[in-house]
Amino acid sequence: MNNINLKEIPYIDEIGTITENYDSSRAIKEYKTCIEREQQENKVVASLREAIIKSGLKNGMTISFHHHFRNGDYVINMVMDEIAKIGIKDLTLAASSLIDIHKPLIEHIKNGVIRRIETSGIRGELAEEISKGLMDIPVVFRSHGGRAYVIETGKLKIDVAFLGAPSCDPFGNANGYSRGNDKGVTCGSLGYAKLDAQYANKVVIITDNIVSFPNAPFGIPESDVDYIVEVEAIGDPNGIMSGATRYTQNPKELLIAKTAASVIEASGYFKEGFSIQLGTGGASLATARFLREKMLQKEIYASFALGGITGQIVELFEEGLIKRILDVQSFDLDAAKSLKNNRFHQQISSSYYASPGNEGSAVNQLDIVILSALEVDVDFNVNVLTGSDGVIRGAIGGHSDTAAGASISIITCPLTRGRIATIVDHVNTVVTPGKTVDIVVTEQGIAVNPLRETLKQSLIRAGLPVYSIHELKDRGEKIVGKAEPIEYTDKIVGIVTYRDGSVIDVIRQVKTDK
Amino acid sequence: MNNINLKEIPYIDEIGTITENYDSSRAIKEYKTCIEREQQENKVVASLREAIIKSGLKNGMTISFHHHFRNGDYVINMVMDEIAKIGIKDLTLAASSLIDIHKPLIEHIKNGVIRRIETSGIRGELAEEISKGLMDIPVVFRSHGGRAYVIETGKLKIDVAFLGAPSCDPFGNANGYSRGNDKGVTCGSLGYAKLDAQYANKVVIITDNIVSFPNAPFGIPESDVDYIVEVEAIGDPNGIMSGATRYTQNPKELLIAKTAASVIEASGYFKEGFSIQLGTGGASLATARFLREKMLQKEIYASFALGGITGQIVELFEEGLIKRILDVQSFDLDAAKSLKNNRFHQQISSSYYASPGNEGSAVNQLDIVILSALEVDVDFNVNVLTGSDGVIRGAIGGHSDTAAGASISIITCPLTRGRIATIVDHVNTVVTPGKTVDIVVTEQGIAVNPLRETLKQSLIRAGLPVYSIHELKDRGEKIVGKAEPIEYTDKIVGIVTYRDGSVIDVIRQVKTDK
Repeated sequence: MNNINLKEIPYIDEIGTITENYDSSRAIKEYKTCIEREQQENKVVASLREAIIKSGLKNGMTISFHHHFRNGDYVINMVMDEIAKIGIKDLTLAASSLIDIHKPLIEHIKNGVIRRIETSGIRGELAEEISKGLMDIPVVFRSHGGRAYVIETGKLKIDVAFLGAPSCDPFGNANGYSRGNDKGVTCGSLGYAKLDAQYANKVVIITDNIVSFPNAPFGIPESDVDYIVEVEAIGDPNGIMSGATRYTQNPKELLIAKTAASVIEASGYFKEGFSIQLGTGGASLATARFLREKMLQKEIYASFALGGITGQIVELFEEGLIKRILDVQSFDLDAAKSLKNNRFHQQISSSYYASPGNEGSAVNQLDIVILSALEVDVDFNVNVLTGSDGVIRGAIGGHSDTAAGASISIITCPLTRGRIATIVDHVNTVVTPGKTVDIVVTEQGIAVNPLRETLKQSLIRAGLPVYSIHELKDRGEKIVGKAEPIEYTDKIVGIVTYRDGSVIDVIRQVKTDK
Repeated sequence: MNNINLKEIPYIDEIGTITENYDSSRAIKEYKTCIEREQQENKVVASLREAIIKSGLKNGMTISFHHHFRNGDYVINMVMDEIAKIGIKDLTLAASSLIDIHKPLIEHIKNGVIRRIETSGIRGELAEEISKGLMDIPVVFRSHGGRAYVIETGKLKIDVAFLGAPSCDPFGNANGYSRGNDKGVTCGSLGYAKLDAQYANKVVIITDNIVSFPNAPFGIPESDVDYIVEVEAIGDPNGIMSGATRYTQNPKELLIAKTAASVIEASGYFKEGFSIQLGTGGASLATARFLREKMLQKEIYASFALGGITGQIVELFEEGLIKRILDVQSFDLDAAKSLKNNRFHQQISSSYYASPGNEGSAVNQLDIVILSALEVDVDFNVNVLTGSDGVIRGAIGGHSDTAAGASISIITCPLTRGRIATIVDHVNTVVTPGKTVDIVVTEQGIAVNPLRETLKQSLIRAGLPVYSIHELKDRGEKIVGKAEPIEYTDKIVGIVTYRDGSVIDVIRQVKTDK
């Protein structure tokens, strides 16, 4: 009697998981070498079309994309064109963000291929068309943390994720850079893509660089990947990454940056082991330079820097002034190179970064965040989504996440931009609630949220030019006057959600016959 | 009008996820520094008791543990004692493996705290008692890959995972070593724990070393962790890790190792870019040494080494003979140190390692695996779970996973152990089906599975001592005779599953009145 051929399964009521007998046909054994298997038995499919069909994509489903390729991205347009050719319609496109290069989506919306959009932001002609009423159903805008939250909780169910990757082995270990060869493009962290890969029902990796197994370390593990498609090109390196992010020469920005660094110094949060996130605006980046001097002078070192990472942060890290980098998105080549080579520069997912469902998420450990704004109002509400003409031209990103998480959130912005005042009575679109915004720094002075009286007194004691937000507003209006109110129709074109998924504002169609 | 106070949510039928309005009480803002938060607002609870209660553990639930602390583990006994004190009963204990040190579980089984066990293996007195009929419901044995598979598919639902970690920050980023200080113990990879953390409903980290945020790089991300308990000690370093694993001096084992290396060389799979996993037995480890010489001589380098990792593998890696290490479990301090310091030594989860639900899992990319055996039968079935007396004294580990995955699986074993023949007519317990076992190497010759005729001819051409499995069996029996059949009762004490979850064998209660 061979034990393998048990004729009867012992029926054991309490063990619900034991339901079937071993059948020797289950023991499948491959005699090929691993190199032969790589070539012959892998997840690589012949074409994007085949991947779409194998993924089981059907009318009405939800697909996702990441924006790590920024304005160099070829993936979204490529995939949408192929989906349109196949004839699949009524899709929800859930992208981590959309940019100027995604203008061709306009046609897919018109043709009914895309029925709904969820995203952190939209720019360019696509944004303009949407603001003018292109879509029947409003776009849902979510912060990076808010997006992670709805994905994790299953409120946003992704059927198929199409994720571009600068390197991938034949079984799906994917990363934002290539270690073994110089082929392909580089985007650094795959932080937003990581979460999509984990939660999507089917995951398709699109790459121009298939490397040998194992592509370790990896950003996305092969266990999250179903199909791989090799294509000629996934993106334009110049659009994906501008070399190193440059320091600004703009005197207004330099003044704002210098003031912001002084605010940090005087805030009471500039202590050994502090943590920081800097945005990518000119003033925000320049703040790093002024802060560096203060860190060296006072011998105060940061425990970690968070967020979208730039070469400026990497410089401080390599100098030993910052001990860890938590990188959800690498903004320039220096950041990507550091992620590749520095052991303490860690790739993190959007959930780890900012999900409000996660009490330990990294934004909650932030002392200081420097953010930008299109508009701030006298209640400290911030708009980073619509321009002074009411048209969509930005992205929530991690704005509301970091403002809520950080002990002090500092908005750096010029008092005026061209003929437009930045500080207004009411922002056109509330993205980040004033309750979570602590300080506004302009080239003509600082305003502190009345909720932070102690903080305000500290800044005054330090001799910083503190005014009320109304005073700053008046100064700006004196220069450029009050803007005409924007004319809207009744149609809602965008729903702005707070990080917990609730509706914090709506965006209406702009009147174009004006 | 403040946009934030939208009185009406625009009801949009097609957007099911949009259901509530922003309420400014949702924007919670903390003004503490990150260091103050670490101290005051974190996931650390005051006691193990509090963690158990907060986890919501109730009668009849399933709890899980890892075995990275091997025979130095304090965690399982500590947690079970506390659960018993609280009075929770009827639990299913799903451990990745159980060892001698877990003998105190006997009392918890007798007292009804533990009702069922799922594990890869059991050793020592607990195993003996179970073999003698201690439990009402049979233990379910699963391979590491099989365990990952049932966890991923939801067949094994873990309610609370209690995971020991040598370092953890106050928000739950946990790892198997400590980077910032020399406190605490070291276990290297947390590969089995990673999956439990990902899938368990609640996760409790038990540590003796709370380090500052962010504990990066991490094995388990904080987003997977609910509670953290700091205790005096989580394990005995001597039991967790024997310094470096030593090379055997046993001439029989050296002869087996030398033959195994020659088998690899002649197999046709010893080619540039090959991949390999070595078990921890003396012969298996010594194979590394002989293989090294052949690699240097022929200038053949391995693409990766997989599995439980030892200092022997690390040596080859640091010499440049192996390009990547994929580490699900670090067996000695050299392996743990390498994981800490070598960028291409990657920590992987049990799913990545071996889940049969995952076509790209690493075992499927293996060319060669060297495994051990308690018994092999003439059908090449292997037993690594029960001794010659029928008593449980082993673990499936990754045995059936790697045998199925690797292009050639090589069993190294002595022809006899004491008065017991290793090669028998029928193994007491089928763990790994013969169909997936290719070669048996003993000190007195080699047998090749008849399914691998080409392979057999290659070995013969290379002048290796190839016999039929029956010839080897006869040789062994000539030395020590045929063993008396074991006497069992009808009671089933263990169910052995194949990696896909099907029942491949059962273990019956041994008769003790004999």
